[in-house]
Amino acid sequence: MTMNWIELEKIAQEWTYEAANIIKDSLAKPIHIEAKSNPNDLVTEVDRAIESYFFDKISKTYPDHHFLGEEGVAEELESLEGTVWIIDPIDGTMNFVHQKYNFAISVAIYHEGVGMVGIVYDVMSDELFHAVKGHGAYINGKELVPVKERPLHESVIGLNARWIVDGKHSYRNPLLALIRDVRSVRSYGSAAIEIAYVAADRLDGYLSVNLSPWDYAAAVILLEEVGCQASTFQGEPLMLLTPSTVIVGKPHLHKEMISAYLGEEQ
Amino acid sequence: MTMNWIELEKIAQEWTYEAANIIKDSLAKPIHIEAKSNPNDLVTEVDRAIESYFFDKISKTYPDHHFLGEEGVAEELESLEGTVWIIDPIDGTMNFVHQKYNFAISVAIYHEGVGMVGIVYDVMSDELFHAVKGHGAYINGKELVPVKERPLHESVIGLNARWIVDGKHSYRNPLLALIRDVRSVRSYGSAAIEIAYVAADRLDGYLSVNLSPWDYAAAVILLEEVGCQASTFQGEPLMLLTPSTVIVGKPHLHKEMISAYLGEEQ
Repeated sequence: MTMNWIELEKIAQEWTYEAANIIKDSLAKPIHIEAKSNPNDLVTEVDRAIESYFFDKISKTYPDHHFLGEEGVAEELESLEGTVWIIDPIDGTMNFVHQKYNFAISVAIYHEGVGMVGIVYDVMSDELFHAVKGHGAYINGKELVPVKERPLHESVIGLNARWIVDGKHSYRNPLLALIRDVRSVRSYGSAAIEIAYVAADRLDGYLSVNLSPWDYAAAVILLEEVGCQASTFQGEPLMLLTPSTVIVGKPHLHKEMISAYLGEEQ
Repeated sequence: MTMNWIELEKIAQEWTYEAANIIKDSLAKPIHIEAKSNPNDLVTEVDRAIESYFFDKISKTYPDHHFLGEEGVAEELESLEGTVWIIDPIDGTMNFVHQKYNFAISVAIYHEGVGMVGIVYDVMSDELFHAVKGHGAYINGKELVPVKERPLHESVIGLNARWIVDGKHSYRNPLLALIRDVRSVRSYGSAAIEIAYVAADRLDGYLSVNLSPWDYAAAVILLEEVGCQASTFQGEPLMLLTPSTVIVGKPHLHKEMISAYLGEEQ
C-alpha cells in the first residue's frame, strides 16, 4: 500500500494540536516531576500521558505502524523497517517544568528508514514547524525559503554552555574554539526547536554532544527541505535507534564546523 | 506636579505597540545593517527609526521629560534628575537581524533615579511584560506571582557562553564554575527578555559581564515587584548612566552567585 504522506501529515498535525491542548490544560495543575538517569534528566506524568495519547491514536488507526518514543510506552524497537512514528511528547522537559514555556511536541514519521513527515510544535508560542519530504518546510502553513549561507564568523549557532563543563566527552577545546570564532551562540533548551530554528533561518547551525533519536527525528526532516545538513560530529548519517552527537547547519557552515573543529575527536 | 504613573504606563504601552507595528512592517523589506563598536555590535535603520519615534512622542507630549536611548538620538544625559525615559528601541538587534524573532522594545521611566514604569515587549511572541512601581508586574495584563526559590544546583540561569571565551574580563573561571554547578543555562540573545524571564519565573537568574543601562533599565523594574534582586557582580546598585556587569535573580540565588562565585574579581 502506498501511503499518502500529505494526508498523514494532516492527521499528525491534528493529533499534535489535540496533544498540545492536553499539555496546556495540565499547566493549571501541580505537575509531579521525577528524575530519570540523573537529577537533571526530568520527566513528568504529562510526558507519559502525551506519549500514551499518541501511541493509542497510532496503534488504533494504523495497527501496522511501529512506534518509538522517549518514555518507553511501546516495546523497544529494533529496526526501522516499515512505517515508524518517532515521538518526543515534550522536548525540553526542563523548560516545561521550569518555564512552562519553550518546549515542543516532536512527531516524525519514517518509512523504511527515510523521514517522510516532520512536525515540531512550539506549544506556547503556537509555532508549528512542519514538512513532508519533497514538499517543502513550513511554519504555520507559511513556506520556508531555502537558507542563505553566512561565513562562520558571522554565524549564530545553538550550543549549550553546559557542554563546556561536562567532563563526559572530549569536545571541550573544539567547542571553546567554535564559540570564540562564531558571531554568537544561543541556547533555548529544546533541541527540536533549535533544529527547527536552523530550518527557519533563525540559527545558522546547532550542535549537541548527546541527543536521542526522538529529540531530532522530526526536526531533521525540515532541514532537508531548505537545503541544510545534519550528521554526527564525524559527518556520519544520524542513527535513529541510538543516541549520538548531532550537528546541523547550512551546508558550508556544517562542513566547516566538522572539518575545522569537531571531526577529529580530540 | 505629581505624575500619575499608571496613566503614564498606559501611554507608554500604546506607543510601544505602535512602535512594534513599525518594526513588523519593516521586516517585509530589506534591512540595512551596520556595525558599531565592533563587527558583532549591529545597528539598523529600524533601531534608529524606533528611537526617533519615541523621542518625538515624548518630547512633544512631555517637553520637561528627559531621554536616554541606545542610538543617541537625544543629547547625552549627565544626570537622572527629574523624569527620564530610558529606551532601547530594539534590544537583541543581532536576533532582529538574524532571526527576525526574539527581540524586544524596552521602555523605562525613572523619576529622580527611581524606576517607576518598566515595559519589555517581546514583539514577535506578542508578550508584553509590564510594571508600575508598587503595583505588581504583569505579562499581557496577567499578574506575575512572587517568585519561589530553588537551590542553586536546581536553578536554570541565563548566561551566554561567549563570556567564557571573551578575553576582555576576568570572570572566566567563576563563570565556568557557575555553569558547572547550576542545573542548566539558557541564552536568548536579549538581556531585556532574559531579565523579564527572571521576573516571570522562567529563569532563576541571569547575568552578563557587560550591559548598557537601556538593556536593563526597564526589566529591573519588573524584578522588584516579584521579590527579585538586581546588582553588579560586586553586589552594588546598578548605575543608569554607565555600562556595568549585571546579575539578577531570586534573592538567595542572587546572593549565593555573588558570594560564592562572582563577588571577588578573579
